[in-house]
Amino acid sequence: MSLIVQKYGGTSVKDVERIRNVARRVVATREAGHRVAVVVSAMAGETDALVRLAQEAGGPDPDPREYDVLVSTGEQKTIALLAMAIQRLGHAARSFTGAQIGMRTDTSHTRARIQSIDARHILDTLDEGTVAVIAGFQGVDDDGNVTTLGRGGSDTSAVAVAAAVHADVCEIYTDVDGVYTTDPNLVPAARKLSKISFDEMLEMASLGAKVLQIRSVKFAMQYGVPIHVRSSFSDVEGTWVVREEDAMEGLVVSGVTYNRNEAKIRLRGVKDQPGVAARLFGPLGEAGIVVDMIVQNVGQDGSTDITFTVPRTDYRKALEIAERAGVEIGAAAVAGDEGIAKVSVVGLGMKDHAGVASRMFRVLADEGINIQLISTSEIKISVLIEAKYTELAVRALHAAFVEAGAAEPRAES
Amino acid sequence: MSLIVQKYGGTSVKDVERIRNVARRVVATREAGHRVAVVVSAMAGETDALVRLAQEAGGPDPDPREYDVLVSTGEQKTIALLAMAIQRLGHAARSFTGAQIGMRTDTSHTRARIQSIDARHILDTLDEGTVAVIAGFQGVDDDGNVTTLGRGGSDTSAVAVAAAVHADVCEIYTDVDGVYTTDPNLVPAARKLSKISFDEMLEMASLGAKVLQIRSVKFAMQYGVPIHVRSSFSDVEGTWVVREEDAMEGLVVSGVTYNRNEAKIRLRGVKDQPGVAARLFGPLGEAGIVVDMIVQNVGQDGSTDITFTVPRTDYRKALEIAERAGVEIGAAAVAGDEGIAKVSVVGLGMKDHAGVASRMFRVLADEGINIQLISTSEIKISVLIEAKYTELAVRALHAAFVEAGAAEPRAES
Repeated sequence: MSLIVQKYGGTSVKDVERIRNVARRVVATREAGHRVAVVVSAMAGETDALVRLAQEAGGPDPDPREYDVLVSTGEQKTIALLAMAIQRLGHAARSFTGAQIGMRTDTSHTRARIQSIDARHILDTLDEGTVAVIAGFQGVDDDGNVTTLGRGGSDTSAVAVAAAVHADVCEIYTDVDGVYTTDPNLVPAARKLSKISFDEMLEMASLGAKVLQIRSVKFAMQYGVPIHVRSSFSDVEGTWVVREEDAMEGLVVSGVTYNRNEAKIRLRGVKDQPGVAARLFGPLGEAGIVVDMIVQNVGQDGSTDITFTVPRTDYRKALEIAERAGVEIGAAAVAGDEGIAKVSVVGLGMKDHAGVASRMFRVLADEGINIQLISTSEIKISVLIEAKYTELAVRALHAAFVEAGAAEPRAES
Repeated sequence: MSLIVQKYGGTSVKDVERIRNVARRVVATREAGHRVAVVVSAMAGETDALVRLAQEAGGPDPDPREYDVLVSTGEQKTIALLAMAIQRLGHAARSFTGAQIGMRTDTSHTRARIQSIDARHILDTLDEGTVAVIAGFQGVDDDGNVTTLGRGGSDTSAVAVAAAVHADVCEIYTDVDGVYTTDPNLVPAARKLSKISFDEMLEMASLGAKVLQIRSVKFAMQYGVPIHVRSSFSDVEGTWVVREEDAMEGLVVSGVTYNRNEAKIRLRGVKDQPGVAARLFGPLGEAGIVVDMIVQNVGQDGSTDITFTVPRTDYRKALEIAERAGVEIGAAAVAGDEGIAKVSVVGLGMKDHAGVASRMFRVLADEGINIQLISTSEIKISVLIEAKYTELAVRALHAAFVEAGAAEPRAES
């Protein structure tokens, strides 16, 4: 008998028919002899509708405390409906809001961070054979104010619950059946990974694979909670996200990802002296703009080029800030480009296999694709290219690394 | 400077435009120098939509605990939206769920009774110049489970809050501008009462005047909270519901009410012996049927007739039960009639004015209306008549007692 935490996202509970489907899955798990806690999101569309109401009533920037009171009703609806649907199938179920399981967070409304969970209520409920149905995405601060974790926070709630009750697995049900080596819409040869390490998943998630929320993966890694990403519409095994030593799939590269939602800004001919970077990135940070890649090259004349990328939604604002900073720090020119894409290869095996970078650059060169920017981590190489080459680059890299490399054993770590 | 509790019902907050209207009223009250706590219902239609969802997910009889978790989200939405709308007008506001103000109730889900309120949070909020926006209709039991007070419970919440914070007045905003001497749709001469006593309001409320929820009036009477019933769409004074000694309007009869939602059941020729009534009304009570009027006449032959009325929605069920009981207790015949109406005159002045009953019967006789059943209390006389005479009876009684009696001074009590 295992203790299983299951998490169902908005599309899996988007109407009562789907909630009934979820209830059947939960009941099947109970009947297989397991203890089950379920974490749910708001019904798909519900949160968006609530956000629209908030803006109608409170203007473009509604009070964050009240915003949280409002949007947290979405998950509260789902827990009650799912508990009812499970009961209707003849099984005991009991709903819990964030407050009711003592999901304590800090006071950062709309993007609160989980601090602790009172596991006692959940465990008592599970021990008496009752399914615990828990509202994701929400918590309370020390003063009893309702908080929310921000978009995608339900994944994090689920992993936090799983960590608190020492679950054997946290199953994340979604509308895809696992984590793929790349976007199957782009590359028909993309295949589902049976296992992936937390580190790889983190790189994949932050690079644009929308399957799991990044914070939930960090949380799972920190507490060693195995995650099983799977489809709520089929029974096939999905992808397990596990510790590195348990993630032996024998691939040098586990995935090829891309992100077309960034834009590039370049400052040329900046004097290479201390404090230049701070005077550029300070104001960007203050404006709440998250800078992704940063590359700086020092030329022979003592001047330097700084290039960086930002989310495309922040592009205009970032360009303005860069132009002002450019004047201050004496840049020769400031230019931006929205027509770019970031393509990355990710894999634990890179740690032990030399030559992945050079092979990647060769593959792109063979396709006539120019590389504008390169950034690397221990298990990832990202390049910035012209956006129109995105599909070509992804297909070529997937063919070279994943399809060709499928048989290539990964060195033991 | 007064401390004012304002309560706005579902139609007053049915969309964001109306919520903004409420915010303007609240702000006007603040700017007049008063401290304000606001109690709100769910947006009109919201609770019905949630009940439909509950039945879809949980069947015709969804689990009451989960039902309360679900429907309580309605008021939670409103408090957040109203707090935002008030803030947008430049005033401080802070929302509170039932749990957050410690609105403790018993554990009777869907029809819980208020036990206590922790006034501290509300008073602290008001003292710092912030408007407290409180979810009506909901509370928590001792174990932190969400409870609801049943339909119309928001009035009761408002009065309970007013009692807890020792408010100067509890203003109940609704879509009519006060309590009328009778239904203005039936009788154009109906006029708004400027004052009415708690006792009279209780009789009016339970007789079908839909303005105030009965339990809220009982609560207000018990704690001596003056209620001011008024329109959320105009600024005119409404009707004050106050203690008897403060309710001197000089009318013998304050109102004429009617109820067409009952049905009559009669058992003839029942043996007049102990236990007969219990064997009839016991099963009706067990079936949850609320019996209103009961009249029993003992004939000379030692047999008796029992006649009673029930809500029309329970008529079929009640008739079946009466027929079974009739067999047991040897009734000669059991017959029902849905074509009846109850018409009542209500007034504190009846205590001191003899002859109201005989005058009432004469008025009805003059119109050729036959009286089927009579039931009286200290300040009320109700008669059962054929439904088709309802309008005629109400108009005649209003003309005789209210229009004619407007100048008649009421005896001091």
